[in-house]
Amino acid sequence: MGLTVQKFGGTSVADADRIRAVADHVARTRRQGHDVAVVVSAMGKTTDELIRLAQDVSVTRPGREVDMLLTAGERISAALVSMALADLGVMATSFTGSQAGIITDTTHGRAKILEVRADRVRDALSQGRVPVVAGFQGVSTDRDVTTLGRGASDTTAVALAAALGAEVCEIYTDVSGVFTADPRIVPEARRLAQLSFEEMLEMADTGARVLMPRSVEFARNHGVTLHVRSSFTWEPGTWVKEEDPSMEQAIVSGITHDTSEAKVTVTGVPDRPGIAARLFRSLADRGVNVDMIVQNVSIHGTTDISFTVPKLELDAALEVTREHAGEIGANDVLADSGVARVSLIGAGMKTHPGIAATMFETLAKENVNIEMISTSSIRISCVVRTAEVERAVQVLHEAFSLS
Amino acid sequence: MGLTVQKFGGTSVADADRIRAVADHVARTRRQGHDVAVVVSAMGKTTDELIRLAQDVSVTRPGREVDMLLTAGERISAALVSMALADLGVMATSFTGSQAGIITDTTHGRAKILEVRADRVRDALSQGRVPVVAGFQGVSTDRDVTTLGRGASDTTAVALAAALGAEVCEIYTDVSGVFTADPRIVPEARRLAQLSFEEMLEMADTGARVLMPRSVEFARNHGVTLHVRSSFTWEPGTWVKEEDPSMEQAIVSGITHDTSEAKVTVTGVPDRPGIAARLFRSLADRGVNVDMIVQNVSIHGTTDISFTVPKLELDAALEVTREHAGEIGANDVLADSGVARVSLIGAGMKTHPGIAATMFETLAKENVNIEMISTSSIRISCVVRTAEVERAVQVLHEAFSLS
Repeated sequence: MGLTVQKFGGTSVADADRIRAVADHVARTRRQGHDVAVVVSAMGKTTDELIRLAQDVSVTRPGREVDMLLTAGERISAALVSMALADLGVMATSFTGSQAGIITDTTHGRAKILEVRADRVRDALSQGRVPVVAGFQGVSTDRDVTTLGRGASDTTAVALAAALGAEVCEIYTDVSGVFTADPRIVPEARRLAQLSFEEMLEMADTGARVLMPRSVEFARNHGVTLHVRSSFTWEPGTWVKEEDPSMEQAIVSGITHDTSEAKVTVTGVPDRPGIAARLFRSLADRGVNVDMIVQNVSIHGTTDISFTVPKLELDAALEVTREHAGEIGANDVLADSGVARVSLIGAGMKTHPGIAATMFETLAKENVNIEMISTSSIRISCVVRTAEVERAVQVLHEAFSLS
Repeated sequence: MGLTVQKFGGTSVADADRIRAVADHVARTRRQGHDVAVVVSAMGKTTDELIRLAQDVSVTRPGREVDMLLTAGERISAALVSMALADLGVMATSFTGSQAGIITDTTHGRAKILEVRADRVRDALSQGRVPVVAGFQGVSTDRDVTTLGRGASDTTAVALAAALGAEVCEIYTDVSGVFTADPRIVPEARRLAQLSFEEMLEMADTGARVLMPRSVEFARNHGVTLHVRSSFTWEPGTWVKEEDPSMEQAIVSGITHDTSEAKVTVTGVPDRPGIAARLFRSLADRGVNVDMIVQNVSIHGTTDISFTVPKLELDAALEVTREHAGEIGANDVLADSGVARVSLIGAGMKTHPGIAATMFETLAKENVNIEMISTSSIRISCVVRTAEVERAVQVLHEAFSLS
């Protein structure tokens, strides 16, 4: 049988007991005849604690040094998992990101993987050993230690799975898979057995927290099959893979929601070419991540532009936007933190017209006002009031019979 | 002015305040016109905590994985000290042992430094930066992460000072230097302004805990001047350097004591060539560190052999010794954990006869019984009862007017 990459998140290796449970599972997978390569996150809250320590020591906190500091976390869990495996008679070798050949650019804090030179990992596998790789980290082309951004141990796992030609990359976490909606809001939400990369990407982009969009994108681009599952129950979870054209596609696979964004509206924008381009270029230069953008049709030569940004970046966004509004002679800039987004995702939407209409009707029947709409071929998102978003998720879940 | 290597031990970087104080001192040294390279230990009890974690997770604890685990400690403090320096406007770059070019053999847990390829450290210095090197660690010729043994951050500092041609290697610790005796036992003990490598080596070997014998030996072999001083008071401490033939040497520089060893005696050993050799070879093969060895003159064809070993290794030593005693027809093997050693050290002893006589007379006058004696050209050690060792240190300190 082939190679399985198993990635264990922070809660999965939070303490000695959990680490031994992880080792047990790896050993069991090996007994079933699979080769296994492991990728680990830092234990529990280790990364947060290291960040707090850095804040106590320094105001400037150069990125290179923060990366040197934070990478200690995964190094610790990789070594401990390897030791726990040794107790079970499974020979294991821990590797830092650098030793595993995760070569990145030089952008500290959110480095991009340029290449995976996994020779040492491959050697370990060919010797019948289990490589245990520290996630979230790499080494830059300048030979400095880098980190790939919060939650990027998934990316390490996917990149390694791609480089090693693994059959599957298993992402172990504290939930048992991807659900049709957040089970805390919709108790009858169902775990999805399977999703396409595109669906998973849309879900991750719009609020499903189980996987980072970036790792899904990497998996799609390299054709790495993902299996999201629980390290507490060990039951089979959700498979994420290439769309299977022979299978009938669910029209709507899931409903996501997100309350982390705020809305900015610029009113009375002169309708001239290049105005919007300059605004969004300035926002990008300032590091503001703009998500949805909606521009109304022009009336009397002016238009309104609305967009959403992470609440944490709202102040910066407003500053940049107000500056521009003055220059271009717009009327006003309005900020609204009381918004949330609800999204329908489903690969079958492409071939089934009328989904959007059903969505809008369902929300209208519940008196949920829609403030912005944006769509892709397999997603429809509506911005609504934060106070109404949970009800919106519930009625849509029922309307599309997802239970 | 030249280069100063400053090494800060665990208590010197124990928390955020201490780390900022260290950064302050490094910045001040730079303002005084010196280039500075820093070597740090892990913060406070970090190493102990990581060892406890390993014990919770694993019984086998492979050496390679323990090294991977423990090296996280110095990585953390190196990054934090670099950040604290950045706050003071001092550009600093942290380096792991591997990045600093500390190349070792493959003996995990107590690797020996084979070579220091300090190119990156040198580059940082030539760019006007302060390199901050994680002590205690290196990379093996197999490209695995290694550690150099407990307390070996001093060794890292000395090796780096030698490789960089530093003017001095300052060892910052929680005491203010090397004293004529342990100040807890002899309140009037005096801090020594200066010691030769040989004296320091004998003192370290016989109980002065302020420096590891290994780092002193390395400093002597490479002619690296040491300055042992406090990171709490920052006052000048004790210089350790080449003996200066123009200076008059102190006859006795200091008195050390050590209660960590036990005595083993084999009685009625047939006085034939090779008997002792075989015993001590077997002890060495078992990893027992034999310290003092005393063999009495032979009476009626048999002799008694006594030796001391660390108390932690007593069980192993007895097992090996009893096996041999049986084979060679010795009478008995006796163990004694109630012993301690008191030592006089002084380079001037070489040219001043009668020191040993004064030592023995002083102890006799106090009714302190001497059980074993061993000497070098600059040291006299006596094994006495543990209960009497503090008194022995006190009366010898007075007899040789060390106050």
